[in-house]
Amino acid sequence: MTTTAYGLDPLALHPSVSDPLLSSMTFLNEVAGRYPDALSLAAGTPYEGFYDVEDVHRALRVFCDHLRTGQGRTEEQVRRTLLQYGRTKGIIHELIARQLAVDEGVHIDPEAVVVTTGCQEALFLTLRVLRRDARDVLLAVTPAYVGVTGAARLLDLPVHPVAEGPDGVDLDDLRRRIRRARAAGLRPRALYVVPDHANPSGIRMPEPVRRDLLDLAEREDVLLLEDNPYGLFPRRGHRLPTLKALDTRRRVVHLGSLAKTVFPGVRIGYAVADQPVGSGPYLADLLAKAKSMVTVNTSPIAQAVAGGRLLEHGCSLVRANERESEVYRQGLDRILDGLARRFPASSGVSWNSPEGGFFAVVTVPFDVTDEALERSARDHGVLWTPLHHFYDATAVDTGTAAGPLRCLRLSCSGLGPQDIDEALDRFAGFVRSRDAL
Amino acid sequence: MTTTAYGLDPLALHPSVSDPLLSSMTFLNEVAGRYPDALSLAAGTPYEGFYDVEDVHRALRVFCDHLRTGQGRTEEQVRRTLLQYGRTKGIIHELIARQLAVDEGVHIDPEAVVVTTGCQEALFLTLRVLRRDARDVLLAVTPAYVGVTGAARLLDLPVHPVAEGPDGVDLDDLRRRIRRARAAGLRPRALYVVPDHANPSGIRMPEPVRRDLLDLAEREDVLLLEDNPYGLFPRRGHRLPTLKALDTRRRVVHLGSLAKTVFPGVRIGYAVADQPVGSGPYLADLLAKAKSMVTVNTSPIAQAVAGGRLLEHGCSLVRANERESEVYRQGLDRILDGLARRFPASSGVSWNSPEGGFFAVVTVPFDVTDEALERSARDHGVLWTPLHHFYDATAVDTGTAAGPLRCLRLSCSGLGPQDIDEALDRFAGFVRSRDAL
Repeated sequence: MTTTAYGLDPLALHPSVSDPLLSSMTFLNEVAGRYPDALSLAAGTPYEGFYDVEDVHRALRVFCDHLRTGQGRTEEQVRRTLLQYGRTKGIIHELIARQLAVDEGVHIDPEAVVVTTGCQEALFLTLRVLRRDARDVLLAVTPAYVGVTGAARLLDLPVHPVAEGPDGVDLDDLRRRIRRARAAGLRPRALYVVPDHANPSGIRMPEPVRRDLLDLAEREDVLLLEDNPYGLFPRRGHRLPTLKALDTRRRVVHLGSLAKTVFPGVRIGYAVADQPVGSGPYLADLLAKAKSMVTVNTSPIAQAVAGGRLLEHGCSLVRANERESEVYRQGLDRILDGLARRFPASSGVSWNSPEGGFFAVVTVPFDVTDEALERSARDHGVLWTPLHHFYDATAVDTGTAAGPLRCLRLSCSGLGPQDIDEALDRFAGFVRSRDAL
Repeated sequence: MTTTAYGLDPLALHPSVSDPLLSSMTFLNEVAGRYPDALSLAAGTPYEGFYDVEDVHRALRVFCDHLRTGQGRTEEQVRRTLLQYGRTKGIIHELIARQLAVDEGVHIDPEAVVVTTGCQEALFLTLRVLRRDARDVLLAVTPAYVGVTGAARLLDLPVHPVAEGPDGVDLDDLRRRIRRARAAGLRPRALYVVPDHANPSGIRMPEPVRRDLLDLAEREDVLLLEDNPYGLFPRRGHRLPTLKALDTRRRVVHLGSLAKTVFPGVRIGYAVADQPVGSGPYLADLLAKAKSMVTVNTSPIAQAVAGGRLLEHGCSLVRANERESEVYRQGLDRILDGLARRFPASSGVSWNSPEGGFFAVVTVPFDVTDEALERSARDHGVLWTPLHHFYDATAVDTGTAAGPLRCLRLSCSGLGPQDIDEALDRFAGFVRSRDAL
């Protein structure tokens, strides 16, 4: 018998896997991989200067001690909790509920929490449960994190873009989009939104807009999917209440990530879904039902590490991230000040001034293509992210056709202060070389 | 503003979450939870007598040392590998490929491995990529693990049952089902099969049948999804080659689980998908693309623990599980011998004699309903699993209508020898009380 190869026809597979959108992250990582000496203003990964593998061991021990002394579990029960299969909704739901109370003033029943393999799974499960059939659509404030459009694509769920505007969501556009979808016989189920320092724009939604958005969601009968990876990192001043903190009518499914506040390697996220469904269980219980067929449960070892980190700081991630917050604050300041020093008003280069988070958006006087990124990496040794990756090219009407192509995202999270300066010098060199074209 | 509750209409959500099938595991766990003193011949969880939380710490250190000395990584790189985001296809793909070579004689390119959040995610991603539209169907040897039917349900992918027969798959029935589906305009994409000590039947597929199945897959142009959680646990004699070991034509996607061979708490599984697709990448690369939108990547901390366990045993899970194998071997023997001692031929009770794994199937002279299980737990203090949970009640034609309702599954994995004897006494008491009805 000779070895022959069974070749699969890509056209016979789910269309999402041939979709350029799902290749965005691969492409960006691949460019970064080809130019290892380039400085990265692209990576949205958290600062790793304070990371230590011993933290993992310590956190595990703290969590096990908590099971023993805090919860009176026997050694056998501790072993079983960490090493066997576990509760589908997770084992650190109470700690997460406490963190939300301590840091966000959000008081929810721990039973409404589903602990997931990263926030992405929380988002994926929510979209899965909300999409019944081909009439359902998702609304997303755009430009949007590629993970939301990609998850929707895997589920054959169309995404209708909603303009972001200067306030994080253009409520008139949202209302228009909802009504237009309904008029077309479609069911707009939810709006995906990142109210605090959005990715990629960095924009923060003012508190009155948050309240208006909640009212609109109630009137128009849609859910709000609030994603909140950057809320703990304001550049100055106070944090604003999350949508969930203002949500008196259970319109908000709150999607949480511990990637930036514990570390990405735990791959722990969660959904808070306290909406009652039918005769009683929370929407969280249906997310768990779906989860039982996607990943069964989230690694209790990974949960224990995250739980230990929470316990070490009295369940406050604000306290746990004091040093990190300062790093991001200074980093974003340094980028914004550095841009101002390098690009005079006459340069045709402009940028926004986000009130926190990892990102700022720069507008340049030329089209920002993937080829431009390639040249920047190769000839100038600096990486950043073309903004077109945050738009869904297949969306019928993005309402922003020309805009994004001259924009790019800079991130402050990956580099220390000296490297930021050097990276901005290189970036300025790249932009000027483009001007000269 | 008063607090009102936004209630979701279950009928507006994806039908899978109201499907009784997805409640099977919840129901079974719930019964177990209500009768904590009942002895469980139901749980398919691995034996935990050898588990120790310190093993987690040791495995982590072993893996980190491997990165340092085996791969020459700096301390910074070790930290980054464990704590940051990572490669979508995983970081222990080479160790898994080595394990498959050492234990199974399967030699594959590590790039064809995708490490997943449990085997369930590997299965889910494979079904996602294979289902293009409403014409695609999955075939599954039935009775089948509820996880496969449930994952298919989440993806709106119909499952056509194929008779198991005495050899693990009835090839005539398989051929008939494929042709019937094609005649109806459908596309049978793959057959889900557990050739070694299937769940629930315990049946092992003889080697000649494996070869015939591979030939049939080639002739009929379908993939084989080989799930292999129990292959390392034969009751006596040698293990048989996996389908993947015999697969010269890349017809087999091999789904692996470390839940039973490392421990469930790592939640590490994998897919080996070396099928070329279109211009070059493996099917594994498309699974990774889908994975990037479901869980982004598998916790590198959990992978490190699994990787450390592999390294501790020279990448042999056979060696790592010598003690566990012996426990399962003795447990299954004890169940089969114990049934023979308790049920004479005249009792109307019969059972099969699997050559390995965790499970045996018992046929009793009454209908095995969920109510019967409830009575067994309440009045007799013993749990087991009604076989109807392994049949898809919505399948058009299971070909096995009357059979399964008088069958139940016993598992040897959860109890020590004395508890097995006591559990069988209680089980015999329950069956006799039913006889007397």
